[in-house]
Amino acid sequence: MTPEATLARLREYMVGPTRLMTLLSCFELGIIDALRERPGMTSAELGEVAGTKPDAVEQLLHLMIKEGFVAYDGESGGYALDALAKVAERDLRRALSYMNMIKVVALRQLFHLPESARNGMPVGLEELYGHEGTLYDAVAEHGDLREAWAPLMDTVTANIDPWYFANVDIPSDSRVLDLAGNTGIGAIHTHRMKASPGVRVTTFDLPEKEKECLENFRKHDLEEHCSFIGGDVFDEVPEGFDVVLIKHFLDMFDKEDVFKILERVNSSLEPGGRVNILVPVYPEDMTESDNYNVDFFPAFFIGCTMGQGGPQQMSTYRKWLEECGFEVTKTITKDPADIPPDVIPRQGILCARKTE
Amino acid sequence: MTPEATLARLREYMVGPTRLMTLLSCFELGIIDALRERPGMTSAELGEVAGTKPDAVEQLLHLMIKEGFVAYDGESGGYALDALAKVAERDLRRALSYMNMIKVVALRQLFHLPESARNGMPVGLEELYGHEGTLYDAVAEHGDLREAWAPLMDTVTANIDPWYFANVDIPSDSRVLDLAGNTGIGAIHTHRMKASPGVRVTTFDLPEKEKECLENFRKHDLEEHCSFIGGDVFDEVPEGFDVVLIKHFLDMFDKEDVFKILERVNSSLEPGGRVNILVPVYPEDMTESDNYNVDFFPAFFIGCTMGQGGPQQMSTYRKWLEECGFEVTKTITKDPADIPPDVIPRQGILCARKTE
Repeated sequence: MTPEATLARLREYMVGPTRLMTLLSCFELGIIDALRERPGMTSAELGEVAGTKPDAVEQLLHLMIKEGFVAYDGESGGYALDALAKVAERDLRRALSYMNMIKVVALRQLFHLPESARNGMPVGLEELYGHEGTLYDAVAEHGDLREAWAPLMDTVTANIDPWYFANVDIPSDSRVLDLAGNTGIGAIHTHRMKASPGVRVTTFDLPEKEKECLENFRKHDLEEHCSFIGGDVFDEVPEGFDVVLIKHFLDMFDKEDVFKILERVNSSLEPGGRVNILVPVYPEDMTESDNYNVDFFPAFFIGCTMGQGGPQQMSTYRKWLEECGFEVTKTITKDPADIPPDVIPRQGILCARKTE
Repeated sequence: MTPEATLARLREYMVGPTRLMTLLSCFELGIIDALRERPGMTSAELGEVAGTKPDAVEQLLHLMIKEGFVAYDGESGGYALDALAKVAERDLRRALSYMNMIKVVALRQLFHLPESARNGMPVGLEELYGHEGTLYDAVAEHGDLREAWAPLMDTVTANIDPWYFANVDIPSDSRVLDLAGNTGIGAIHTHRMKASPGVRVTTFDLPEKEKECLENFRKHDLEEHCSFIGGDVFDEVPEGFDVVLIKHFLDMFDKEDVFKILERVNSSLEPGGRVNILVPVYPEDMTESDNYNVDFFPAFFIGCTMGQGGPQQMSTYRKWLEECGFEVTKTITKDPADIPPDVIPRQGILCARKTE
């Protein structure tokens, strides 16, 4: 890499925040929707829709024209959607939901990334919301964070769980523990998507989740098959289960805490007991350009959600599992061809058995 | 552009903020400097330097490895600078100074870009600093903004003024007005870089700039050749000048205010009087991929500094000058080959004469 190429790459980094917010503002101001409904609108007309001067519309749309997202007709002064017109609404909505999450949950918070790394806490949440704790507590208290965060988590779960359950083994009649199972969606999916006869799933999470979790089980008519245990994985993991599901969880912690989790799960199981882990994974070759986990998750986990954590390579998780008394029986990463091109997380599954 | 390519491009936008802050944090935490001095340090050693856990160092450096900026030796667990080692310190410092400015002056403020466009004010400055007004007032009151902003402005001026003065005509014995000339640096450069005999330069800016401006003239032994007039360009431009310099100014305003400025300047001049304008310009072909003005300035001016403004194309400035009673005698844009690849602004010069 020549010094010139390095410097050019730095410029690419510099325009990251302005690019994101220029694009998102064109949507938030209603400019893109207006153009979808009525192609050919001028900046004056769009300014009325957006509640801005025509000048601001023109300025913000320049980048959309550069990208080929929007077209401009110099003769008429009219704008029309170009590349954006060809993207399916569902795809665009998914991407927008992610961009909005990044705006609300990450953009300002990232200012404090260095202090967050030093303090092991997302300092931005304290600065912006007076909140001392993780994003996962903060969403309970702050509607704006929750509204940006929750829909995205639901989307991610809805998209990834079918793949997860298609690839993990949950034998008939097994007793399943969904570790950090939140309000029961994993337990419900186990029944809906796995359909192994006689399976009983227990959601294990902090006691304050119990009420909503049990309501969810009732709503889905799964009260007989699902239950809830309140507790903290860092204290003790309940015993008496054959299979433990660990979804979207290990990547939130530094190595020390990942080991605590895996060791407590190991202690709770009989030899031969299984864990099925779902987690974003970094590529084995870190220079692989098409994997964006690396571009996003370190700063996101350290600066915006936990003050620690971040995914690992599959080989690292495998090693850690072995060091914690497991034998890895299967690893699989999601085929990039099956992931829409706007989606950042690249997920992997590790299945393992407690050794004798 | 296929829908897939559009969605992939959106993902590129999404990781903009995390990329910038991951990179900048590696510098701010002292990791890059430590590696420059002692290649081969491990994450544990770097964590001691940075004041973080080794885990955070590893997470943040993943992206540096992906980019080829830093290399990792899996055998020894040691890191070393790769592409970053080859960049001259002066170049790196310039890029870092710009990145730091973007962090402090733009990153959090951009959250409020849509409201800023609607209100015609940089709403982020009010939200973050309780400041009602532009960035240019705010830097006077807030040290953190000033420290991020001022060094950059000085760098930009130092880099661009030699080119500007090499390309504009300032006849001997002419009386020059430096419009919005701040604390006199433009006037001083006129003497240092132009050396037309008998030239007198007057800095015109808000009265509160007078003291510092006159001190600067004294420091440079230019009291006999330079003077200051206090006033507001939107009220009246002083008469009696042959040449008006308008540097880094027109791009701060929407069309209406640009016209006010040009019309007031026009009124203040005799026929044949000249203006020499320095301003970033957008490319005539907006889809030109190597011009980053479009990626940066609209969001920056509207969201972070003025609540309005942004550069225009050269052809637009030409048209506006003509509509305000000028004949354009020369336009020139800086050759991209003469601009370091990390530098965002692409500057242009327009010289014009008041028509009879």
